[in-house]
Amino acid sequence: MELLTQSFHMNKAVDETSYAKNSSIQSKIISVTKSVTEEAILEVLCKNFPESMGIADLGCSSGPNVLSVISNITNIIYAKCCRSGLPKPPELRIFLNDLYNNDFNDIFASLPDFYDEMKEVNGNSFGPCLIFGVPGSFYGRLFPSNSLHFVHSSSSLHWLSQVPPELDGTAINKGHIYICESSPQSVLDSYYRQFQKDFSLFLKSRSEEIVPGGRMVLTFMGRRFMDPTIEEGCYNHLDLLAQALMSIAAEGLIPEEKVDIFNTQYYAPCPEEIKLEIKKEGSFVLNRLEVFEIDWDGGAVEAPNTVSIGRRVAKLVRAVIESTLESQFGSDIMDYLFHRYEKILDNHLSKTRSKYINLVVSVTKKSQGLGN
Amino acid sequence: MELLTQSFHMNKAVDETSYAKNSSIQSKIISVTKSVTEEAILEVLCKNFPESMGIADLGCSSGPNVLSVISNITNIIYAKCCRSGLPKPPELRIFLNDLYNNDFNDIFASLPDFYDEMKEVNGNSFGPCLIFGVPGSFYGRLFPSNSLHFVHSSSSLHWLSQVPPELDGTAINKGHIYICESSPQSVLDSYYRQFQKDFSLFLKSRSEEIVPGGRMVLTFMGRRFMDPTIEEGCYNHLDLLAQALMSIAAEGLIPEEKVDIFNTQYYAPCPEEIKLEIKKEGSFVLNRLEVFEIDWDGGAVEAPNTVSIGRRVAKLVRAVIESTLESQFGSDIMDYLFHRYEKILDNHLSKTRSKYINLVVSVTKKSQGLGN
Repeated sequence: MELLTQSFHMNKAVDETSYAKNSSIQSKIISVTKSVTEEAILEVLCKNFPESMGIADLGCSSGPNVLSVISNITNIIYAKCCRSGLPKPPELRIFLNDLYNNDFNDIFASLPDFYDEMKEVNGNSFGPCLIFGVPGSFYGRLFPSNSLHFVHSSSSLHWLSQVPPELDGTAINKGHIYICESSPQSVLDSYYRQFQKDFSLFLKSRSEEIVPGGRMVLTFMGRRFMDPTIEEGCYNHLDLLAQALMSIAAEGLIPEEKVDIFNTQYYAPCPEEIKLEIKKEGSFVLNRLEVFEIDWDGGAVEAPNTVSIGRRVAKLVRAVIESTLESQFGSDIMDYLFHRYEKILDNHLSKTRSKYINLVVSVTKKSQGLGN
Repeated sequence: MELLTQSFHMNKAVDETSYAKNSSIQSKIISVTKSVTEEAILEVLCKNFPESMGIADLGCSSGPNVLSVISNITNIIYAKCCRSGLPKPPELRIFLNDLYNNDFNDIFASLPDFYDEMKEVNGNSFGPCLIFGVPGSFYGRLFPSNSLHFVHSSSSLHWLSQVPPELDGTAINKGHIYICESSPQSVLDSYYRQFQKDFSLFLKSRSEEIVPGGRMVLTFMGRRFMDPTIEEGCYNHLDLLAQALMSIAAEGLIPEEKVDIFNTQYYAPCPEEIKLEIKKEGSFVLNRLEVFEIDWDGGAVEAPNTVSIGRRVAKLVRAVIESTLESQFGSDIMDYLFHRYEKILDNHLSKTRSKYINLVVSVTKKSQGLGN
């Protein structure tokens, strides 16, 4: 059984295939959901201005998005303090979470510049702003009890804690690596069970850590409809990657059996599935749940004709998924695989314009006594 | 002016010159001061058993010492809970601090094994044990107000926040890189002023973070006597490094002027200097202050005759000081410099057995109202 905590991580460093250089979609998503974040933070601050405010970014990864998220949050809080005529802002405790093998060194090295920028923007009123790295899986406890006021997570919760155990090492989903149009019902059921288990544990863990009235804004890949096989936007990018794997298996470069038993630890839930888990767990009130679409390449701007869309999409997918593929198929084949994926994507995109479907969910922690 | 936070860090990764492979002295010091640590933690727990306990290791660096420190602390707490018949141990919040460019990735990657080991030793009663990386200088605020119960720091507080500004870029301490037998009084004064400034800021910052009755155990290099020029144990290892620098300058490999204006951001205080700062700052009661000696190579065990003591000492010093030397003299010369240092050390050690002098200091945070 392959656990998310063991081999999965964004590509490190800042070379061509790194997450830091290939996270324009995630950046686009963060900017789309900025207003939802602002609304949630302002509602936390409306109820009471805490002396010390706990903020967490779950699955923060590395690269420029990390600090853009926290500077956005910090600026919202400081602006509100200023408008409210507060003599000094709350002490901010900012927790940056990702898995044990995330590139925290990269984040920490950029903090002196971040602090300088914050001091410049906010003047002498800035601080204390305490930043912590929190390594570990968000499918479990990470933070002190009753310590957080606002939790943010972007482009992370579609990753499961593990491949559904019923699928692991079996060929039920032969030739595919996630739910697709032709998947048998047992594959759909296995993925849904794993999602339920993970998402309810996520909610339970956060419910112990978030203060009553505290908020969470979660953005992740999802789908619109109950049936996961009818909507291309939630699986197509992975099914085309499965095609790339099968085509290099046909060339004898990797064993086809290895592709047959490989599945991704990914799940794109629909709004009803999210609502049901929130209701069952019972600690949170749902304030907002919206579906939005985003272009496959996040609308990245590059000089025309220099890089194909297929290449850009392949690079974006590679940055987040290469580590899991490497542990199954070896690192030597990766360049070749993603070159093939690029060609398949270009061919696909010449016929149709594809979009990812994303969900943004905003919830409030109930007051004590109302939960459970 | 060279700030400690900018270029100073232990050597990363796990190659021959890394801190992880060359921290046997620090490990020896940790084991010598284990009983002082135990005494302090037990006194914290005697007064009251907090529901959630904040613990910090300041200047934790990377490598095997980090987890040995926190597993030692965790085991002391769990054993005490067990003896006291407590149904469940407190929630532990463990904060690991070092500078922004410390190798936190190395620490975090070893946490899954650490958790497994802790679960094995402490059984089902283990947890929650929440571990945080806290990048930044301990000469300033790092943690939430009133949140810590026990603070540990080993082999870090002899590093100043910066080279004393009066010495920076001047040749007052020509041919030397720290206080030595022949240093003029102005050099002694400059170093002492920087120490006072740094150590009082350290105490003030911690006094805001530690709960009343909370404890600190600090171990660092120091000296016995008021006069810093009479005791070889507090400066000799650096003066021999200055000799190595001067000898390669004489060969024309580095400019002598660069050695003349180079000084280390190090200070080995005497017990009276520590007592005075604690008294002046006013938030802490001194429980214990002891001086102890430690062999230059920490008594590392290697196959006889394979590696000279000089080589071992050179490697130990290199692991902590190389980053600062590199920024002044360039990285190309480092192998040659430390090879020369090794020869000088071997020659010195053939005539005399040298020891480092260390201080261990244990203090308690006063109750509110008594401080300041």
